[in-house]
Amino acid sequence: MEALISANVGSALPYGEDPWTAAATERFRALIDQDVEVLFTFGGTGANIAALGSLLAPHEAVICPAGAHINVDECGAAERFVGAKLIDVPTADGKLVPEAVLPLLRGAHGEHNVRPRVIAISQCTELGTVYTLDELGDLASLAHAHGLLLYVDGARIANAVAALGCTARDLFHGTGVDVITFGGTKNGLIYGEALVFLQADLALRARFARKQATQLASKMRFIAAQFDALLRDELWLANAAKANQMAKRLANAIAEVPQVEITQPVQANSIFARLPGSVVRELQNWSFFWDWGTGLVRWMTNFATDEQDVARFAEGVRFFSSAAGARPSTF
Amino acid sequence: MEALISANVGSALPYGEDPWTAAATERFRALIDQDVEVLFTFGGTGANIAALGSLLAPHEAVICPAGAHINVDECGAAERFVGAKLIDVPTADGKLVPEAVLPLLRGAHGEHNVRPRVIAISQCTELGTVYTLDELGDLASLAHAHGLLLYVDGARIANAVAALGCTARDLFHGTGVDVITFGGTKNGLIYGEALVFLQADLALRARFARKQATQLASKMRFIAAQFDALLRDELWLANAAKANQMAKRLANAIAEVPQVEITQPVQANSIFARLPGSVVRELQNWSFFWDWGTGLVRWMTNFATDEQDVARFAEGVRFFSSAAGARPSTF
Amino acid sequence: MEALISANVGSALPYGEDPWTAAATERFRALIDQDVEVLFTFGGTGANIAALGSLLAPHEAVICPAGAHINVDECGAAERFVGAKLIDVPTADGKLVPEAVLPLLRGAHGEHNVRPRVIAISQCTELGTVYTLDELGDLASLAHAHGLLLYVDGARIANAVAALGCTARDLFHGTGVDVITFGGTKNGLIYGEALVFLQADLALRARFARKQATQLASKMRFIAAQFDALLRDELWLANAAKANQMAKRLANAIAEVPQVEITQPVQANSIFARLPGSVVRELQNWSFFWDWGTGLVRWMTNFATDEQDVARFAEGVRFFSSAAGARPSTF
Amino acid sequence: MEALISANVGSALPYGEDPWTAAATERFRALIDQDVEVLFTFGGTGANIAALGSLLAPHEAVICPAGAHINVDECGAAERFVGAKLIDVPTADGKLVPEAVLPLLRGAHGEHNVRPRVIAISQCTELGTVYTLDELGDLASLAHAHGLLLYVDGARIANAVAALGCTARDLFHGTGVDVITFGGTKNGLIYGEALVFLQADLALRARFARKQATQLASKMRFIAAQFDALLRDELWLANAAKANQMAKRLANAIAEVPQVEITQPVQANSIFARLPGSVVRELQNWSFFWDWGTGLVRWMTNFATDEQDVARFAEGVRFFSSAAGARPSTF
Repeated sequence: MEALISANVGSALPYGEDPWTAAATERFRALIDQDVEVLFTFGGTGANIAALGSLLAPHEAVICPAGAHINVDECGAAERFVGAKLIDVPTADGKLVPEAVLPLLRGAHGEHNVRPRVIAISQCTELGTVYTLDELGDLASLAHAHGLLLYVDGARIANAVAALGCTARDLFHGTGVDVITFGGTKNGLIYGEALVFLQADLALRARFARKQATQLASKMRFIAAQFDALLRDELWLANAAKANQMAKRLANAIAEVPQVEITQPVQANSIFARLPGSVVRELQNWSFFWDWGTGLVRWMTNFATDEQDVARFAEGVRFFSSAAGARPSTF
Repeated sequence: MEALISANVGSALPYGEDPWTAAATERFRALIDQDVEVLFTFGGTGANIAALGSLLAPHEAVICPAGAHINVDECGAAERFVGAKLIDVPTADGKLVPEAVLPLLRGAHGEHNVRPRVIAISQCTELGTVYTLDELGDLASLAHAHGLLLYVDGARIANAVAALGCTARDLFHGTGVDVITFGGTKNGLIYGEALVFLQADLALRARFARKQATQLASKMRFIAAQFDALLRDELWLANAAKANQMAKRLANAIAEVPQVEITQPVQANSIFARLPGSVVRELQNWSFFWDWGTGLVRWMTNFATDEQDVARFAEGVRFFSSAAGARPSTF
Repeated sequence: MEALISANVGSALPYGEDPWTAAATERFRALIDQDVEVLFTFGGTGANIAALGSLLAPHEAVICPAGAHINVDECGAAERFVGAKLIDVPTADGKLVPEAVLPLLRGAHGEHNVRPRVIAISQCTELGTVYTLDELGDLASLAHAHGLLLYVDGARIANAVAALGCTARDLFHGTGVDVITFGGTKNGLIYGEALVFLQADLALRARFARKQATQLASKMRFIAAQFDALLRDELWLANAAKANQMAKRLANAIAEVPQVEITQPVQANSIFARLPGSVVRELQNWSFFWDWGTGLVRWMTNFATDEQDVARFAEGVRFFSSAAGARPSTF
Repeated sequence: MEALISANVGSALPYGEDPWTAAATERFRALIDQDVEVLFTFGGTGANIAALGSLLAPHEAVICPAGAHINVDECGAAERFVGAKLIDVPTADGKLVPEAVLPLLRGAHGEHNVRPRVIAISQCTELGTVYTLDELGDLASLAHAHGLLLYVDGARIANAVAALGCTARDLFHGTGVDVITFGGTKNGLIYGEALVFLQADLALRARFARKQATQLASKMRFIAAQFDALLRDELWLANAAKANQMAKRLANAIAEVPQVEITQPVQANSIFARLPGSVVRELQNWSFFWDWGTGLVRWMTNFATDEQDVARFAEGVRFFSSAAGARPSTF
């Protein structure tokens, strides 16, 4: 927020020709590698669509987990804008594995079938799990061996770096990833994502795709200034580490509640749990956000979650699950 | 062919404003219902794409079996032209069942998710199986109860009618199907398919989609003349019945071969069989057409297949599977 | 900016389910009409694309001035995302007139030709001119008489209202416009536009199009909070009036410079002028923004432009045009 | 027609893996150049769309005459399928000239503007005029000098070759054209067009685009067999020369009729004439085909037009224009 205020002085050239954009780009280069190209966008769906829209020819396809945000939560934007098929692969934990991808790379029959061109994954995954560096490296190797690219939706990439205890350079530069987003919105920005191209030549075409995907901000300095602040003094990592820590804390606090089953390993800042419908209903207006289908809920922590929040929420879970004790006052 | 020659006289108004098109349309109306609208197209992929392209808004989706022609054999044309998501459902026998569709009609979350609008199936299916009239009726009821339409890719619809022993009216008019193709190419025409709209108001928009999908023939009379001949004296049904009969005959002829496993019920004019790789290789240049992946082959019969063809091919299957006896002279 | 800070407290439901979005929507309803629907977007291209993407079927077309932003400055986003043809009409002053539109509404020939569905104009136009209320009403009447809709790209709508001396209600509600954007970015916001639907039923589909066009902000409250502040106490109108006033002042200040020809009436906040190439080059690094082709430049004023800015810039124009006097220190 | 009958024997591999397709391809190579690649399609719109769909990235654009078939007579198929902008240029005679193209190749402004990639013309043009070999060469040179490709819609290419008195090799190989269609439907085939790629590497991607554009015929041999016959013994050229000759004959026969103004030079097989509305109405049911707007009609001749047809039609024109003499019996 302070960064925004400081950028709100005087006038500047639009569309990224300003010093804030240059400075934020330099921060990314210092963090990852001098050769990366960085394109800022308004939002996460926009970053995904601009990236995929620049990487694929129309007869090519994306291989992704069935639960991928691009597959289920973007209202078919990829099909509409990119015109490409998403080949979705069922997973147990949200993570794509080479053995599931390999069969999809074989047996194409002339021009009758689409040609996979991009493997698209999310880090952290939509189920809150985290690929290890080796797992990323294996997917990148598989992709490159078959002439494909590896794209990573990093809306929660900071949480993954924090969870892995590695550096951004290790994850972005050391694994063979080709294009990756560096999420800002879920890590404290009021808006803004960064598309990072490890192969700079891929970025040129992406500039056009970003514009066509309506993600070129005229006052880009306000996105860049926020990233400049986020990357300074490792604020991005501290934010993420705090969120991860709170998620673990919450998981521990409710681990013993009999009616609650945590369904995925808590590796970053989300908890997936199965609860009785009556409990889900009681909790649904509380301040954490979740989705729910058949009794499965998602709880997210973020940079602003603190120990008190966790304690209060855990108390609520315990109360509604056991129907014992006094109703917590905050519910 | 004779129909083509007879249409090749004098000149005619283009784009379907000719007497052949009027006559063929009347034949469809006599066969099915006076209210149907019929649009002729060059090919089967074109008929599918023109239909889907007219039925969906861009945020809507198609539910189809995973093995549907539109999903795997049309090079992503639906995604590219229609811009819509295909939600593909795994099946054992190529047939979509209401229980598999129903969960996909629930739980949409605001504008984040696409909205299913069309259930698309193939009759016969891509695995050679045939929906019963009741099964079609159940899918149509499910679709209509949720504001969806039922679309049927009928590239092999004649074989289905022949297999069911029903009339075209029973299948097209009695089940609740909304749009259905009546395949010509696989039933003896040199080219040409017919898109039949049971709800005439759906056809108006489809005229534009047919043109945009590059399927409006300037010399449409040559497609119409073929259909006029095909529908005359039930030639379409005789062709299909013959093909079905030959498929059954072949299935019987090889049923006892130990190394051959027929994997799907032989309900129309295709046989799916699993054979040792060595046998598949020997048979692959023979005159029947098939696809093969992991030892699974498809054999199709058609209107031109006769008893001798079947006998010779069965002899080949037996020989290569057993490596006994003399090599058949035709292989 | 203060509005942003005030919205940055606590947590809120995402995607517009927050009180800021409700409050800003109410302000629009108070300003225009209780029945309008308002959808917020990140940017102006996004607002255009979301709107057009929801209003057109794929065989329909948009009629727009040749110089329209959607036609020349959005990198073909409309063609890519909407899949529709833009029929562009040459204009002298950026304004579409009924006589130029009428011939395009006649003579369609079956499914061979696209069907115009939307007339799309900009207010103010890309050449800085302003449609009168009567001109807007005439276009709306023409559109409705032929089954079309009138869409207005209002990136600079505040400047138009200020220039016309009318109320927002007069322009939005009194003319027959169907959908209109209310630009925020060019009127002082750090980002954010509002899509206003005068016919509320058109907005439902637009929600999906906004999501697909990647313009649904998860933290929408930050856009809404800015609009809430902008609409409070008529700040939007004061900003625009100031900008318009400064443009007129600048035009007057340079009217007598012999080498400068002002090519369009200065009706809002832009000045189009033709200058010798040598003068254009000297001025191009100055703090106003402009485009230039063959000696034609555009100068924009905005809410932050003051009398001193105008005086200094006019001094520069005079100096470089005459090469007399001392070089102004600020150049 | 005889070619079709001869191809209707036995069975063949589908999708172009048959001897007829190989033979027809060889005929094109003998006619033009050994290195050309040939893709057969069902129709002319399909050939255009498959070609453009393979040549353009989504941020690229096509420059074409305003009256181009792809621009006005294909219902926006290019925009819908290709997603690209058509930049249309007004012409007097249907022919694009370098001076009109050149300004469109300059002044692109970052990612805000589309990038022209293809110059698309028709030979013969939609107004019946014919580019000289030099004019084609100049457009090709201009295109290549700016990194563009020259595409020619040759639905009536045979008439152009006949009109120019050159060889197919001169026109296809000697001018620098990159991709060109060789029209069959308008030159006597019952259906079928050929896409000819002078740069063979451009054809690979086009195979996918042809399939996606629904133009891959399963029974391709029937298209190929027709082309095989058309190219044998220069039948294609004889057909076209006859049609051209009949057009000239008709033009001469009506040149003196006072109320008839021939508006374009009659260079191939069409005549554009302006007549009083009363005359147009009388002639509209006659056996020639035409379009008419404001008294402007088009008359086409074809391979089947003979001297008697011309004489009778000219008699009709004279009669209805003068209202003198006895009404011709054939009207």
